[in-house]
Amino acid sequence: MHQPSATPLYLEDLAVGQRFTSVEYRLDEQSIKAFAAAFDPQPFHLDDALARTTIFGGLAASGWHTAAITMRLMVTSGLPLATGILGLGGEISWPRPTRPGDTLHVESEILEIVPSRSKPDRGIVKARNTTLNQNSEAVQVFTSKILVFKRPAGSGTG
Amino acid sequence: MHQPSATPLYLEDLAVGQRFTSVEYRLDEQSIKAFAAAFDPQPFHLDDALARTTIFGGLAASGWHTAAITMRLMVTSGLPLATGILGLGGEISWPRPTRPGDTLHVESEILEIVPSRSKPDRGIVKARNTTLNQNSEAVQVFTSKILVFKRPAGSGTG
Repeated sequence: MHQPSATPLYLEDLAVGQRFTSVEYRLDEQSIKAFAAAFDPQPFHLDDALARTTIFGGLAASGWHTAAITMRLMVTSGLPLATGILGLGGEISWPRPTRPGDTLHVESEILEIVPSRSKPDRGIVKARNTTLNQNSEAVQVFTSKILVFKRPAGSGTG
Repeated sequence: MHQPSATPLYLEDLAVGQRFTSVEYRLDEQSIKAFAAAFDPQPFHLDDALARTTIFGGLAASGWHTAAITMRLMVTSGLPLATGILGLGGEISWPRPTRPGDTLHVESEILEIVPSRSKPDRGIVKARNTTLNQNSEAVQVFTSKILVFKRPAGSGTG
């Protein structure tokens, strides 16, 4: 398992099957409501009493809040890419809600590495990034395509 | 084209090929940096001078910021579903960056409607939601699966 403090990685440092784990992030009711008020103002993300009458059965974070936290965890510790996490897109799903008080972390696995045919300094890396709560339940699965660069010539082996 | 002020829709009001357009949302440099500081702290989302040295060629919003704004636009005007936008997931891509000063809106099209076999009160609706800037360039395409409920029995035709 890759450690959060490890050396940033270039394309040639990655291999299919590699796994990475982020640090943890706890979110509370206030942050769920603040994000929802800004970006996803629906009752089940804003009001616990109303949320209990919906399919969520209680206050739930916006899926986009979970996605944003996931990105923070990947950028700050979970996927230590030297040239940053340049996401082109991917497939996202939210198998269960994120709740107030949940502590999340992200586990990433490299699924595929496709070097560019036209640009020898880069490639597309496909990774599955699973966001888990404190009960090891997946709250989000994001299978992403990321643009990753090779180590610049003459920069050593890092 | 559906108007933002229209009556909220239930599953039986939807049809493949229907299109909806949201209101507009302008984002500025300050909001790009604030979102990035919270959720996607990478140089190309935080610092214009540094961003000019990267593949973005200048400050760009986090893709997750574009996604969050897209959700706001859909919830508040773009997809007037009576039971809310209950997203199960989907395929997301960012064909070009969102820039400071961009004015975004979302165009949604219903692609597929699949009634639930086991639960007669609901179905899954697949919609393509394209987020466009002021030059009609797509900055995000999100093909989403949304849980939509039928009109409750005895509630009239809305």
